Amino acid sequence: MGLDVGATSIKGGLVGANGEVLKKGSVPSSVEKGVEAIEERIVELLESLGGSLVPGPLGIGLPGALDLDRGVVVHSPNIPCWHGYAARDRLSAITGREVILENDANCAGIAEGWVGAARSVRSFLAVTLGTGVGGGVILDGRIWHGDSGRGGEVGHVVVDPDGMACGCGGRGCLETLASATAVMRMAREQGLAGTLQEMSDRARDHDGTQRRLFEGAGRALGIALATWLNIMDVHFIVVGGGMSAALDLMMPSIRVEIARRAYALDPERVVIRQALLGPDAGLVGAARLAMADGRICDPCR
Amino acid sequence: MGLDVGATSIKGGLVGANGEVLKKGSVPSSVEKGVEAIEERIVELLESLGGSLVPGPLGIGLPGALDLDRGVVVHSPNIPCWHGYAARDRLSAITGREVILENDANCAGIAEGWVGAARSVRSFLAVTLGTGVGGGVILDGRIWHGDSGRGGEVGHVVVDPDGMACGCGGRGCLETLASATAVMRMAREQGLAGTLQEMSDRARDHDGTQRRLFEGAGRALGIALATWLNIMDVHFIVVGGGMSAALDLMMPSIRVEIARRAYALDPERVVIRQALLGPDAGLVGAARLAMADGRICDPCR
Repeated sequence: MGLDVGATSIKGGLVGANGEVLKKGSVPSSVEKGVEAIEERIVELLESLGGSLVPGPLGIGLPGALDLDRGVVVHSPNIPCWHGYAARDRLSAITGREVILENDANCAGIAEGWVGAARSVRSFLAVTLGTGVGGGVILDGRIWHGDSGRGGEVGHVVVDPDGMACGCGGRGCLETLASATAVMRMAREQGLAGTLQEMSDRARDHDGTQRRLFEGAGRALGIALATWLNIMDVHFIVVGGGMSAALDLMMPSIRVEIARRAYALDPERVVIRQALLGPDAGLVGAARLAMADGRICDPCR
Repeated sequence: MGLDVGATSIKGGLVGANGEVLKKGSVPSSVEKGVEAIEERIVELLESLGGSLVPGPLGIGLPGALDLDRGVVVHSPNIPCWHGYAARDRLSAITGREVILENDANCAGIAEGWVGAARSVRSFLAVTLGTGVGGGVILDGRIWHGDSGRGGEVGHVVVDPDGMACGCGGRGCLETLASATAVMRMAREQGLAGTLQEMSDRARDHDGTQRRLFEGAGRALGIALATWLNIMDVHFIVVGGGMSAALDLMMPSIRVEIARRAYALDPERVVIRQALLGPDAGLVGAARLAMADGRICDPCR
């Protein structure tokens, strides 16, 4: 059983041993109503999924930076009431089961490595281009957590040091240039109307203005990926999140930046794949962690 | 026995089991005279060090991107005659012993982790600010090579995407802003004379113009390190190479950028240390690899 708690909705699912989603559901997160309202939504969702019938721990993906040792949310820009929230202990108390926490973008990476676009790939980067930009770094089959559990925050790779202010306190982070939020903001600034889907449809119909929006996001992503490749030399990259539906529109400029900036690397060796699991990635990855019973050892296999 | 082949000189040394340099020497690289001249210099240096009396493999650190499986230099901007050079086989043939190759910045990282500034630190980044900017990524006691042996090229982290052209084909890489070469170039552009040492002395004597040069380099390094921290969340950073003698002058601006840009991280937890082994780091690391007999398993311990 896995849950994916987002700023808008909480998704949950019962996942089989081969990654198949056997049953799933979602409820609104009620973030604006505070901590206890979110907890009530989680309990409701679990009950509706028959959670009490499923033994074993519960995997939960959360947005933001987590202190995994203490099970506490350190920073969560989109769920501000969760700053300092003792998520593991509280959610364990209200659900009556062992809880395994993980960053939501890391969950998506685990899922894509397990049964998605990076199946059988030992090392890869999973980028989630959604409301924000998250990431999961998978090295030799394991999530790389780093010294304080914050590994993989590729949304805050600096792309334009004097650029727009970012929620993290920096400027010109990838998130300010290639998230769905950023593209919608730039569209509004140019007087463009419509949803992301409508804009990408028009861009595919050769509307130059709309096309340039996606090219700009692709350029920013390409610069960030070149930096990733130069530091880590890990060639396999999975792109998920709402913006990944427009990956075809971003790909040419991603490729141009990688070819230009990735040092001493044959750009043909860089593989960029659209994520396969869509909105289920987070809950599938969280469920995978629950299956592994908290031992985060090669969960991608 | 370890060698460190640079664009200007080749250094060699006999290194004891505790990292002590028992005997060392250096010869000019003769890069301009071509491949065979470099090979002759290497043989000369080994003979002068009594290399034939020391059993076991020879560790050699080289600048540039290596194909470690094939033992070939893929790209070496400062030793252009080495592009495509079958270094392992050739150097093994002329020295009559097994040769273990490694990128020179990785050798420096191994040495600093073994007996230098990062001793007993499991994961760290070693940055070398010299003629160019190199780097070694050490994760859980091992060099991270990546998919094609190019891991750790932090000199090509993109700091200013529309900045100055870099030798790698990109623009605004860290190397164009924080290498010794870059700082000297910027000094000349401002009509400043003297060596790096003289300029840093004057900067410490409160010469504002000279001080701003080092602050600018520190700002670029701080931006690149914030990106590193956001991706990898590895807090321990060792800075070596000629520019590291001016680390005190760069540190305030490094710290400002990290505090501003590292996401959800207490900047106090980030440790930045000057490398301890100086110009010996490369040969000590190369010798350490030779001791490990080619099994690159926790060489930093």
